[in-house]
Amino acid sequence: MSNLALQELLDGRWGHVRRAAREQLAGSHFVTVPGETLEEARSRVSKLLTELPTEPGVAAGFPIEYGGGADPGGSVVAAEMLAQIDLSLMVKAGVQWGLFGGAVVALGTKRHHDAYLRDIISAALPGCFAMTETGHGSDVQNLRTTCTYDPQTRTFDLHTPHEAARKDYIGNAARDGRMAVVFAQLVTGGQSYGVHAWLVPIRDGNGDPMPGVTIGDDGHKAGLLGVDNGRLSFDHVTVPREMLLDRYGQVDEDGTYRSTIENDTRRFFTMLGTLVRGRVVVGGSASAATRSALTIAVRYGDIRRQFTAPGHDREVALNDYLAHQRILLPALATTYALSFAQEELVTALHEVQTAPAGATDEHRQRELESRAAGLKAAQTWHATRTIQACREALGGAGYLAENRLAGLKADTDVFTTFEGDNKVLLQLVAKGLLTGYRDAFGSLDGWGRATFVAEQVRAMVLERTAARALIQRLVEAVPGRDEEVALTDRGWHLRMFSDREEHLLDGVIRRLRKGAAQKKDRPFDIFNDVQDHVLAVASAHIDRVVLEAFVAGVDRAADPETKALLSKVCDLYALSTIEAHKGWFLEHQRLTPARSKAVTAMVNDLLRQLRPRMRELVDAFAVPDEWLNCAVLREEPARQEAMAQFDGRLS
Amino acid sequence: MSNLALQELLDGRWGHVRRAAREQLAGSHFVTVPGETLEEARSRVSKLLTELPTEPGVAAGFPIEYGGGADPGGSVVAAEMLAQIDLSLMVKAGVQWGLFGGAVVALGTKRHHDAYLRDIISAALPGCFAMTETGHGSDVQNLRTTCTYDPQTRTFDLHTPHEAARKDYIGNAARDGRMAVVFAQLVTGGQSYGVHAWLVPIRDGNGDPMPGVTIGDDGHKAGLLGVDNGRLSFDHVTVPREMLLDRYGQVDEDGTYRSTIENDTRRFFTMLGTLVRGRVVVGGSASAATRSALTIAVRYGDIRRQFTAPGHDREVALNDYLAHQRILLPALATTYALSFAQEELVTALHEVQTAPAGATDEHRQRELESRAAGLKAAQTWHATRTIQACREALGGAGYLAENRLAGLKADTDVFTTFEGDNKVLLQLVAKGLLTGYRDAFGSLDGWGRATFVAEQVRAMVLERTAARALIQRLVEAVPGRDEEVALTDRGWHLRMFSDREEHLLDGVIRRLRKGAAQKKDRPFDIFNDVQDHVLAVASAHIDRVVLEAFVAGVDRAADPETKALLSKVCDLYALSTIEAHKGWFLEHQRLTPARSKAVTAMVNDLLRQLRPRMRELVDAFAVPDEWLNCAVLREEPARQEAMAQFDGRLS
Repeated sequence: MSNLALQELLDGRWGHVRRAAREQLAGSHFVTVPGETLEEARSRVSKLLTELPTEPGVAAGFPIEYGGGADPGGSVVAAEMLAQIDLSLMVKAGVQWGLFGGAVVALGTKRHHDAYLRDIISAALPGCFAMTETGHGSDVQNLRTTCTYDPQTRTFDLHTPHEAARKDYIGNAARDGRMAVVFAQLVTGGQSYGVHAWLVPIRDGNGDPMPGVTIGDDGHKAGLLGVDNGRLSFDHVTVPREMLLDRYGQVDEDGTYRSTIENDTRRFFTMLGTLVRGRVVVGGSASAATRSALTIAVRYGDIRRQFTAPGHDREVALNDYLAHQRILLPALATTYALSFAQEELVTALHEVQTAPAGATDEHRQRELESRAAGLKAAQTWHATRTIQACREALGGAGYLAENRLAGLKADTDVFTTFEGDNKVLLQLVAKGLLTGYRDAFGSLDGWGRATFVAEQVRAMVLERTAARALIQRLVEAVPGRDEEVALTDRGWHLRMFSDREEHLLDGVIRRLRKGAAQKKDRPFDIFNDVQDHVLAVASAHIDRVVLEAFVAGVDRAADPETKALLSKVCDLYALSTIEAHKGWFLEHQRLTPARSKAVTAMVNDLLRQLRPRMRELVDAFAVPDEWLNCAVLREEPARQEAMAQFDGRLS
Repeated sequence: MSNLALQELLDGRWGHVRRAAREQLAGSHFVTVPGETLEEARSRVSKLLTELPTEPGVAAGFPIEYGGGADPGGSVVAAEMLAQIDLSLMVKAGVQWGLFGGAVVALGTKRHHDAYLRDIISAALPGCFAMTETGHGSDVQNLRTTCTYDPQTRTFDLHTPHEAARKDYIGNAARDGRMAVVFAQLVTGGQSYGVHAWLVPIRDGNGDPMPGVTIGDDGHKAGLLGVDNGRLSFDHVTVPREMLLDRYGQVDEDGTYRSTIENDTRRFFTMLGTLVRGRVVVGGSASAATRSALTIAVRYGDIRRQFTAPGHDREVALNDYLAHQRILLPALATTYALSFAQEELVTALHEVQTAPAGATDEHRQRELESRAAGLKAAQTWHATRTIQACREALGGAGYLAENRLAGLKADTDVFTTFEGDNKVLLQLVAKGLLTGYRDAFGSLDGWGRATFVAEQVRAMVLERTAARALIQRLVEAVPGRDEEVALTDRGWHLRMFSDREEHLLDGVIRRLRKGAAQKKDRPFDIFNDVQDHVLAVASAHIDRVVLEAFVAGVDRAADPETKALLSKVCDLYALSTIEAHKGWFLEHQRLTPARSKAVTAMVNDLLRQLRPRMRELVDAFAVPDEWLNCAVLREEPARQEAMAQFDGRLS
């Protein structure tokens, strides 16, 4: 069944990282243990973190001079691989090396790097990323913790003014963290300069909280039991001046504030922008977990049989049922599409973050942030839906912890709302699309804060992605009238996707213009009344980006047989997406009723064609059996054999 | 905020049961404890079961002469109330009194009742319902356990022939059960008579397995930790002849088999039909849990604020965002609709099961089974989707166990696949709809087994529900041309729903006919190729039944203000359902593009109108605060207050 050409294509540019992980982390030492208590899970994962190979690994993103690999792309892919082993381990690694270590690298300067990076990389210094507050989840620009400079003592005073301002959901806080990067409003000389970050010790050498620091425990969660999320409050904690991570803003001894970025909002979003990797990791990990879930569901559906059918001499394999295919195959096609889109995103991240200092242009940085936000939302929602469907596809067996899907579901569930709530992220994407039109309807402040996007965003995102020329050629080759075009014409798919995006964008702009004219006295309503259209345009944009990445991926396939197979999977992705939005296409007369029905018939036809290839398609994900960690996949073949023998003997 | 008229209407015919539960089970003694270990949860729930009030209660369904209340409807409603307290407790009670006790009542005869019912009701005799096998989840007619009569010893020999035939997912088996109703193929005189049930001791007085009985543990599950699901295997276990539950089939001492129902399949499905209450309970409990989740999400969205907006002097409440309303309000409207449909179903169940012996006609029994199957599927899928959405609506807080939604999601997740896999149940519904057309395309055996429906099913279901006359009048009042009809015209809604059902049904019949002619050599394909249409017609049928129940419910509202509010909620249910299926309506030219867009605009308009009533609508569910058991609802008001004071002081 194995299709190495396909596997290699999916493994992609960081294939060596994936292969190394499959070898270095082979066996069952690192995999999840169902039914652990909270404390067992936390202590196991905490210990495993120190045993992870670093080369290549999640820590590969650090600068070479401190022992890293200067390979941000590789570190993201290494995290995806951990996500297939144990999502708690991935998140714990992501907190330590991505969020905590990443913030020290990106927001700190040489003295912070020299002092801490080696211990961060070795995990000798476990740390937290303390941004979110109980009262301000998404609206981080308005968090309430203050850090006030006192020129007398040349120290900062870090303070939590009330319970709603405590730091919450902070990974590594409840049990292990020794230090935290704490985000707070910087105040000096009686004036606030917006959110900055400080390195703050939170526990002493005995593991006790530092004076003035109160540490709480978020306790049991739906999943991710191995991650010790907690709460941090600061009661006038003294922080030395040097502990300000001062790459983007400095405070002189006398309290004078200096920054090369004058505008507070813009500075804050520039700082946030350097931390984009977290979202790329979450999106990629969600897809990695989805690949595990689909591998389990498809392999189970191939061996599990249910109901005798006329004309069949034994019971029918689940995967032979149309209703089963209808659930698993479009999800599988979308997972392929998202894998190619994620690969493109990781490449963009890698290029931006390894560009020589000063060579990164802001436009590319903003586009990266927008793409990361959109694909994080798309991948995490897809994961939530698909893993749920896989759980149901296993029936009662899917509910048992020993069959892994319950854990995959519970562990990934938070991804839709952490590292940016998906609905907020979609608004960021939409704002990027709309920025070019701003003059038409005035400032976007209405949901400006809601989208974490600074005013200076100029990203213009109706451009083409990587395989621009190829896509242009395909689109131009489509005849003018839809009815003459084959349903599997790739150019037609591309045109349908981009027409939908452009039309929705026009609609939002028209509505905003109208709103701006009619609702001057109700500025909130101008934006709120189109919020559903805003989310729709962002979603349509991401669909188009994902399809283009898939098309480019198909084009990269060298082996003709692999290319033909992949092209069918791409057909299924494109047509099942069009089918899912057929209401919109019909409303806007981009599909006739007859052609809309033909799309459904063609999707069903593709399901029949791809049915015999389902196993091959999931095998190309190359998730090792030990990582799948699923009892019923190990046990079911023998049971089916016993049953067949028994039935043979009886009849 | 409280609207007692609305609450009373929702409480419905068994309002006294709901009110009694709210009083008798007040406080926090019975509610879930987040973060328990498996053993803690099992022992707590096991103990609580014996402390539940029985009058009124889940055990109210038993005959009066044994201490029950002869109130099957009341027992279902009592189970729904437990579902709002702790779903493990509901399932544990459902296993003991519904499945185990219910099978003894329905399948046993007086000697079984006299011997066991009192101890079953008091829970002194904890029992299991052992039907499902590892290898045969849905296809219970083909389970492989055998029970063979030996006239020499006048006993049966109960035997598990191979591992795939072990009983699996059996509630009460892993820890507590002393006896089990075991389903197996009855063999006597060398001949098999199909599936029957026996009462079999599985543990002795010390709690050790009986000789020949092997008990396994399903271990950790996604949720429902308080229910001890396990596995049972039988190695030639001797079962006395009297332990056959022999209401529908008897074996004489000499081994002669006797039954008033000659056909084995028909007899089996008659036996299954008597157990319909389990499905009614699962569907109702799913909706009860959904009401709890929506209460939490809506109350949180009313107090929780995020992002300052222009024109607002403090941050905006989550419920003011259109995107938030778009998620919560249609789900709330559907929950209302389903509550009325469930009430109608419970009434039908009650009437069938309390009819004098011999007075129940088979037609009503079949219709009840079909309705129970369809509403179980609709309610459990709605629960899975809605509780997930509520979890996401709470952001990170929704992921913490202390805020309840994680537990509600995990506990209800299995409902879509237990007591009948939803996709299998929808096929049962479809088969009911198609039975009248059977002659047109031959036997329905193709998915006969798949749907648990015996050949004799005559249910005919394009009839109207309870408020038949009212609905007929509304439909007839609609003018001929849609474009002239107001979007909120109830008759138009009803006509759209029933047109969709009828048109889909016609389509399935046409396709089956065509398939029967063209694919004679591939009988499996005839059915499999239309499986998606079959599921769609079943789903459309359920939608129509639910809308009609809601319409009847609105009509029952005496208070005009309540009626007007409820009517708007009904509009939202009808229009958001039409919107969800707008692709189909446009394809079949039952909506013009312009009217389709108008439907969306009207849904948004209804959201704005209902926004101020959200809290009132969930308060009418009357879930006590202790049962909601949600930390953030208790804590957030003080936090918002502290934040407002602090911000006031600062500005």
